[in-house]
Amino acid sequence: MEIKQLKEKIELYLEIFFQEKEKEFRGSEFFKEAVKKIKEITLTGGKRIRPIIFFLSFSTFSSKKKEEALKTSIFLELIHSYLLIHDDIIDNDTLRRNKPTTWYSYEQYLKKMGLKKNQEKMAKDLAIIAGDLACSWAYQILSQSKFAEELKIKGLAKLNEMLAKVIEGQFLDILLPLKKKIKKSQILRAYLLKTASYTFQYPFQIGAILAGLSPQKAEELSSFALPLGIAFQIQDDILGLWAKEKEIGKPLATDLREGKRTLLWYFASQKIKERDKNFLQTLIGKKRLRKEEIERAREIFSSSLALAKSKKLSQQLINQSEEKIFSLKIKKEAKENLIGLVNFLKKRNV
Amino acid sequence: MEIKQLKEKIELYLEIFFQEKEKEFRGSEFFKEAVKKIKEITLTGGKRIRPIIFFLSFSTFSSKKKEEALKTSIFLELIHSYLLIHDDIIDNDTLRRNKPTTWYSYEQYLKKMGLKKNQEKMAKDLAIIAGDLACSWAYQILSQSKFAEELKIKGLAKLNEMLAKVIEGQFLDILLPLKKKIKKSQILRAYLLKTASYTFQYPFQIGAILAGLSPQKAEELSSFALPLGIAFQIQDDILGLWAKEKEIGKPLATDLREGKRTLLWYFASQKIKERDKNFLQTLIGKKRLRKEEIERAREIFSSSLALAKSKKLSQQLINQSEEKIFSLKIKKEAKENLIGLVNFLKKRNV
Repeated sequence: MEIKQLKEKIELYLEIFFQEKEKEFRGSEFFKEAVKKIKEITLTGGKRIRPIIFFLSFSTFSSKKKEEALKTSIFLELIHSYLLIHDDIIDNDTLRRNKPTTWYSYEQYLKKMGLKKNQEKMAKDLAIIAGDLACSWAYQILSQSKFAEELKIKGLAKLNEMLAKVIEGQFLDILLPLKKKIKKSQILRAYLLKTASYTFQYPFQIGAILAGLSPQKAEELSSFALPLGIAFQIQDDILGLWAKEKEIGKPLATDLREGKRTLLWYFASQKIKERDKNFLQTLIGKKRLRKEEIERAREIFSSSLALAKSKKLSQQLINQSEEKIFSLKIKKEAKENLIGLVNFLKKRNV
Repeated sequence: MEIKQLKEKIELYLEIFFQEKEKEFRGSEFFKEAVKKIKEITLTGGKRIRPIIFFLSFSTFSSKKKEEALKTSIFLELIHSYLLIHDDIIDNDTLRRNKPTTWYSYEQYLKKMGLKKNQEKMAKDLAIIAGDLACSWAYQILSQSKFAEELKIKGLAKLNEMLAKVIEGQFLDILLPLKKKIKKSQILRAYLLKTASYTFQYPFQIGAILAGLSPQKAEELSSFALPLGIAFQIQDDILGLWAKEKEIGKPLATDLREGKRTLLWYFASQKIKERDKNFLQTLIGKKRLRKEEIERAREIFSSSLALAKSKKLSQQLINQSEEKIFSLKIKKEAKENLIGLVNFLKKRNV
């Protein structure tokens, strides 16, 4: 199956899942609203990259139960919604994929219900528990999938591990900016935790485990996923400043407005002029940047070679990942699938 | 084993769990801090009622693997910490069991790290993900326990269900106050979801399932838990206004300050005078109530018979629960255990 087709099928299974949830809780209007909110953020856009990797991995190691694997793959989208919902509260973001984020959508809902004050606070409270609900659904999908119990337990153990890692990455993301001295290795560790293991390595491993591989073997084979995942995060950082706003579905330069410690920031900080540093400092906390501010930020990252260094590192990591894939002892067709995935990521512009 | 002894052993297993977590993440200072925060809220006080019920249920239906069941029972305390951490953000509470809540403790941490502004916002962000981490640990404990895979999968399915229910209860808790007309049945439904099923019915069911009972049988036998759980919540509401502050470990009358729709509130609202209603309205949002305000609130709930009606209902529900326990077809010793639990709850003053 082509990646595009996979994506369509995954979205179909998500639709079906939410239809069932809508039926399930007919009685409670507040629960119904939560289903609607989680559905909105889950169905609006997204590359579906985690379920795709999960499925490619599964079908590399199993020729049976492929449809069940695809149906199950959506647990990763529910986990993603859970984390995004909480993330958007943390980052105070009002838009994602050109649509209101969950808390922001709840704010509109509360206004409609006639709430006169504290709408933002209450909206964020509701979004915390809506995220928690999405998490319980993700576990539900995986627990109830039609695979052997011992495979599911091993898969669930990996899911637990994955969540602990991505959360460790989020702690780094929030707290690193408070540190006076930051090492490149700390930034790369955050990328490893919050993107590489979460978006690439674990979806691959869980797919392989449900296909019958031992957790040890699955981990061994998933090593190609780590450099690929870090490269993906670097691409993300670059797109966040240089892509078209329409394409990424949110305002440009969120990392700069939030004072995030990206690799771009790190490379620039090594040789930045005092007045450029001060300028970047002024951007933190702004709701939106003006065109000239974005232009100047781009200029700072270009002229300090931070952009070029980031692109180079990203390319090196992708090459590393390709080499690892070529050296894997798996069937030819499976290798082609994985290389197809790498190419898909190479070409991405969102 | 006596309930008091059970509690001590549960706390010992919690200590061991956190010792292992502390070792696990030696490398990352932020993760270590999160372990510390979750440990603080988990180890400080608490009645351990959920693991106790889980264990009583397990040992009613199984004479093997009792120690493993007790060791596993702590997953319910981690789930509870997860929900409490999020709850304290939502309710803006700074104290729980006489100690700082997680977000409040993070606020102190951030101040120590030198953060000059937005400490409260960032502290709450960190607490959101610390809560999420506790959730992944709860799932980890249950997934990795030494029971047969098919039993664990059934237990996990119940855990997912339980979380979806308690979250539905939280939605009701937050959103019911926005409704002009509230029915008694809606309040009781919230109690059913947020306390009876979460604190009593599901811990009992999961214990029975790990002991080998079918989910159907476990559900059937757990019906005594629902009236008991609602009674427990009513007791909680009463203690929240009439207990000694030292004993409950948090300021009195939080329900009133948060405008919660309790059964006490419902009974009073049926025959309340306009000026008393206005007085209660003025309490909402206050950080702390004065002694006279608490006295007057108590007077309102007493003279409107709301207190007496609540006590009566609570007593009726406890009787119902006892009758159900007596009619269960389980061994005599098991019945005595469950009745022991009821008596333990009858006598509680915190």
